Amino acid sequence: MKRFFGLLLLFIFTNVAYSQELLDLMPMPQKVERKEGKLYLDSNFRLSINGNPDVRLYKATTRFLRRLDEQTIVWFKQDQITSTVTDARAILNIEVSRPAKVVLKEDESYSIAISGGKIKVKATTDLGAMYALETLLQLVQADEKGFYFPNIEITDAPRFPWRGLMIDVVRHFIPYEVIIRNIDAMAAVKMNVLHLHLTDDQGFRIESKSFPKLHEKGSNGKYLTQEQIKDIINYASDRGIRVVPEFDMPGHASSWFPGYPEYASAQRIYEIETKYSHFEPAPTMDPTNENLYPFLDQFFKEMTALFPDEYIHIGGDENSGKQWDANPKIQEYKQRHNLKSNTELQTQFNHRLQDILSRYKKKMMGWDEILEPGISKDIMIHSWRGKKSLNEAAKKGYPVILSHGFYIDLLHSAQDYYLNDPLSESKDLAANELSNIYGGEAAMWTELATAETIDSRIWPSAAAIAERLWSAQEIRDVRDMYRRLDKLNNKLEFLGIAHKKNYEVMLKRLANGTDIVALKTLVDVVEPMKGLSRRKQGITYYTYTPLMMAADAARPDSKVAREFSYLIDDFVATSASHLADSIKRQYQIWIANHENLKNTMRLAPATRELEPVSENLKRLSEIGSGLVSYLQKKSKGKLKEKEKISETQLKEYGAFFKEAAKPRANVEFVVLIKATEKLLDLVQKDN
Amino acid sequence: MKRFFGLLLLFIFTNVAYSQELLDLMPMPQKVERKEGKLYLDSNFRLSINGNPDVRLYKATTRFLRRLDEQTIVWFKQDQITSTVTDARAILNIEVSRPAKVVLKEDESYSIAISGGKIKVKATTDLGAMYALETLLQLVQADEKGFYFPNIEITDAPRFPWRGLMIDVVRHFIPYEVIIRNIDAMAAVKMNVLHLHLTDDQGFRIESKSFPKLHEKGSNGKYLTQEQIKDIINYASDRGIRVVPEFDMPGHASSWFPGYPEYASAQRIYEIETKYSHFEPAPTMDPTNENLYPFLDQFFKEMTALFPDEYIHIGGDENSGKQWDANPKIQEYKQRHNLKSNTELQTQFNHRLQDILSRYKKKMMGWDEILEPGISKDIMIHSWRGKKSLNEAAKKGYPVILSHGFYIDLLHSAQDYYLNDPLSESKDLAANELSNIYGGEAAMWTELATAETIDSRIWPSAAAIAERLWSAQEIRDVRDMYRRLDKLNNKLEFLGIAHKKNYEVMLKRLANGTDIVALKTLVDVVEPMKGLSRRKQGITYYTYTPLMMAADAARPDSKVAREFSYLIDDFVATSASHLADSIKRQYQIWIANHENLKNTMRLAPATRELEPVSENLKRLSEIGSGLVSYLQKKSKGKLKEKEKISETQLKEYGAFFKEAAKPRANVEFVVLIKATEKLLDLVQKDN
Repeated sequence: MKRFFGLLLLFIFTNVAYSQELLDLMPMPQKVERKEGKLYLDSNFRLSINGNPDVRLYKATTRFLRRLDEQTIVWFKQDQITSTVTDARAILNIEVSRPAKVVLKEDESYSIAISGGKIKVKATTDLGAMYALETLLQLVQADEKGFYFPNIEITDAPRFPWRGLMIDVVRHFIPYEVIIRNIDAMAAVKMNVLHLHLTDDQGFRIESKSFPKLHEKGSNGKYLTQEQIKDIINYASDRGIRVVPEFDMPGHASSWFPGYPEYASAQRIYEIETKYSHFEPAPTMDPTNENLYPFLDQFFKEMTALFPDEYIHIGGDENSGKQWDANPKIQEYKQRHNLKSNTELQTQFNHRLQDILSRYKKKMMGWDEILEPGISKDIMIHSWRGKKSLNEAAKKGYPVILSHGFYIDLLHSAQDYYLNDPLSESKDLAANELSNIYGGEAAMWTELATAETIDSRIWPSAAAIAERLWSAQEIRDVRDMYRRLDKLNNKLEFLGIAHKKNYEVMLKRLANGTDIVALKTLVDVVEPMKGLSRRKQGITYYTYTPLMMAADAARPDSKVAREFSYLIDDFVATSASHLADSIKRQYQIWIANHENLKNTMRLAPATRELEPVSENLKRLSEIGSGLVSYLQKKSKGKLKEKEKISETQLKEYGAFFKEAAKPRANVEFVVLIKATEKLLDLVQKDN
Repeated sequence: MKRFFGLLLLFIFTNVAYSQELLDLMPMPQKVERKEGKLYLDSNFRLSINGNPDVRLYKATTRFLRRLDEQTIVWFKQDQITSTVTDARAILNIEVSRPAKVVLKEDESYSIAISGGKIKVKATTDLGAMYALETLLQLVQADEKGFYFPNIEITDAPRFPWRGLMIDVVRHFIPYEVIIRNIDAMAAVKMNVLHLHLTDDQGFRIESKSFPKLHEKGSNGKYLTQEQIKDIINYASDRGIRVVPEFDMPGHASSWFPGYPEYASAQRIYEIETKYSHFEPAPTMDPTNENLYPFLDQFFKEMTALFPDEYIHIGGDENSGKQWDANPKIQEYKQRHNLKSNTELQTQFNHRLQDILSRYKKKMMGWDEILEPGISKDIMIHSWRGKKSLNEAAKKGYPVILSHGFYIDLLHSAQDYYLNDPLSESKDLAANELSNIYGGEAAMWTELATAETIDSRIWPSAAAIAERLWSAQEIRDVRDMYRRLDKLNNKLEFLGIAHKKNYEVMLKRLANGTDIVALKTLVDVVEPMKGLSRRKQGITYYTYTPLMMAADAARPDSKVAREFSYLIDDFVATSASHLADSIKRQYQIWIANHENLKNTMRLAPATRELEPVSENLKRLSEIGSGLVSYLQKKSKGKLKEKEKISETQLKEYGAFFKEAAKPRANVEFVVLIKATEKLLDLVQKDN
């Protein structure tokens, strides 16, 4: 990794004419140099491949041709690519030294040079070449003459070798086709690990041929078949993406026991959980049952044959130990073996798991908790508890990746995830310790996400994380990130990501067939409750609770709210009158929207819970609009004495902001409140 | 069937208060009687099942609960249904006499009675009960108190027992998940046969385990696996839908020969076709090759084991016979066996196919062409050539279904398909002959449709066909059909149909990331070229040609154009001034749109082909707007002599209409032209 830190970030425009032509690359390459000139696309566009790539590159270049043709509609004559062939007519020449292996730390570097009507791509492996193709698709521009590639030189390679996305396919089942389209999106932002969280209390979501009762009794009939898993692995591998499966144990294990209650730590009849917590003593494997190990051996024999990656994730997190405490035989075992705590018992269990996995030539990976004294250095630690544990693992010589701060299901802003640098608290680490930090994973848990909404929770946030893990550490201009993210976000739709299209469908469902304009105006600016707060209101969410409410439709990082907030920032900084007018226009829209939304509510009962939200947005807008008018008049010296806002009034505003910031109907619009507060601050300073 | 004709269509409102409450049922049940009162939904809503249904009803009722809960968000407490159980708390009681078999002519009738806060569903089989559930979901209404079911009595059963949708998964591969979501939509409109066109010149789209070279060499890697086929069959069967596979032979057979050239009628190297015609002599099986029959026997042994339905469709259409004519050995065979024509040779081939199929207890089905002297009455004829052949088959005693007039890939209006009654030309048939007409199939060929666009070609047209095949013959009020179709069309989205959501994605792609408002305003009112005309312009479409143009985004039956056309009809009928104003406002929007669209075109090269279309729409709108103004002034007696429109001018308008009606950029807006012509006619009559 270290060698990439040394690469200087260059972004040189050799000609001012191109300053209008904003390149929308994401993740930002290590080195980009714009040259004079353009390469226009026409139907004669062809490509050829030289060197010695894996066959995956033929498929990838064929897909590239189709995607480029679909975007530009110039009707390329070239059909499928099926071999390396020197073709003098080729506009794009790709040269690859050797076939890649889709494994950790494979060479992913590439270079692109466009000039003189030709494009040259060079890469050590086909993985690098595929990343070059993604960069090329992002480079396409249009002017009055048509679509073109800018003449350019790019040199690129990732900062971290592990750039992952974890999808929890358990809590709500995430079907095959949703995973497939997310792989396409991952490839577009150069992510390279898909981590599937396959088993948990609410379901066993993978077919087992050795133990069919696992998926048959451990799911509601919704699971990934082995054929689907194979397809997913091949599809991912074709895009340079590894697939790491997770089988969470010894806790988070309820779904093992409807089929195999004999391996639980308490003997009773088990069903899969339909709630997400409050089922203590939580069903946990009994590590003192000697029969468990041949069972797991057989299970892992099957699964390690299915998954080619060198890592198997065994979870290992959040074992409350309550079933162990309640079982006298387990207590007796601990005494007999001088195990002082449940942690020591779990570590012993992990040792035995590791023995099983190494028999099948696999390395063990697990959440923070598995890092206990005596566990071999061969394992990969997955840090969910924070950078302290990340750094500890690295210092102790364990390879480790970060997910703390990358929990995208918590619905924080892309900015928050973007600025979460894995090495931000690693100043004290030596170079060899730093090199133990392999990267990170965006983690998408699905207690409150479904196949319909998951894309809108993963994207575009995961792209910000992808850039954090690929690009240079110094690339952290948030407004520029959002500019590029918005462009990418549109393109993700063309890959099939349903984050935008499902949004409108959900609004239509809520609006009960009536016009959605007013509803959309409101839901466009609200965000679902963040963190774990939505589930901590005393209402129980079941796996079958309908997640089709406004809070489910709303996106975690409102673009309208953000842009409005930037507008206010600019106004506060400049006092420009045209900005004040724009701000007031927007406030007026929200004020007027309240009456329109009431019409929707009359005919669409499921929208009625939004009334107080809309009411508060209206009130906020009235206050904000008044504050802007005040500031405008003030700056023009036209403020009359009677128009001054009293201290009492200002305090009332402040109190309202505080009240309005509380979530209602599981949504909030804190970004707008914070923006409006800046106006209030300005007026208060003035007074 | 006949007994359903006798049912009188009743639609009685016992209370005028309900006349506002338009029921949106589609297909319209045989008998509907609204009663006073409503049943409001709350979280205590529960259902129970009595009697003896198939287990599919437990799954269907669980899905019903979730769909109803998702639509209303009242958080039902009831989770999965897993058995028949008498439950006094149940609001909905379902009673079923016996398990259904998903076969032709199974009892599909049901009744619904809602009163006194209870819903009673009765059906002979679980199929009928499932149809009742679909009707119930369509019955849900909302008022100021919340969601409710109207008190009502419904008795229902289909007019025809074969209500199918054929999907060509070959020309463009249609993947598993698209088929799955279309099955859900079929179930929602009570269709009961999914016909999969699995093999053709452009691909062999099903995995064969006996002859893997069929799908491996006969496709570009895109085919349905047997596991997917099994899933599709189970998924369909759970919804009362039969799956009929088609293996087209002896013609339309190119994709058999890359793997097995020895069975073709000319010995050469074969590849799958990437064009849709012009590859004569078309690759055709050699029926004189005795090795062909053991091969087909083995193949059908495998496929008949996979598909449980009693019918296997063997295509049999459009064999040009040119490969046969060119092969001296085949000519010699014909002479030797006294076969006077290629038709006779094909009939002999069909006899042998039928022998094979009956060995595996299957009945043969094929397109019109298979009906030749001597073929057994046991086969099902699929009529694509017209009602003459439909009636002929019926008269000769062959069971027959209609697809002529139901080719939805030809992109005609829903109205055209809706009014295509299978029995409209069958006056001369006796009752026993009529009963040979089993129904029909909407046929969706995919030369110009892809996984992205197919939903918008199937839906909502197929729903109009579904009503034609289910409801009474007298139900044919087109405007009321469109009213109900529009409602249904929204609901199809909630089942996952992507006809609307993919539309906007396609516009965004065409607009190259710029605002789509102007583009949408235009594409909303144009329709893709109809019939076969788009492919007959001298440009060759390949299987890899990008179908992402405006013509691919545009929908076949523009709602905006239709409603505008109705507006003009109403104005022509009434001369009402407010209608004139609405018409002029709409024309003004189209006039203004032209300049806006030019801005899009500057930045989005793929939209530039639309310039003449937009220009013509602008000109049409200017003319139309002038005509309306003229008629307004005239009717108010305010027309000045100099404002009269000259004969020359009117002729010029007529000539322009003719010119503008020609498709450009593969789209047309004939509906708007015809509507505007009505204004011209009125002015001309006036002159």
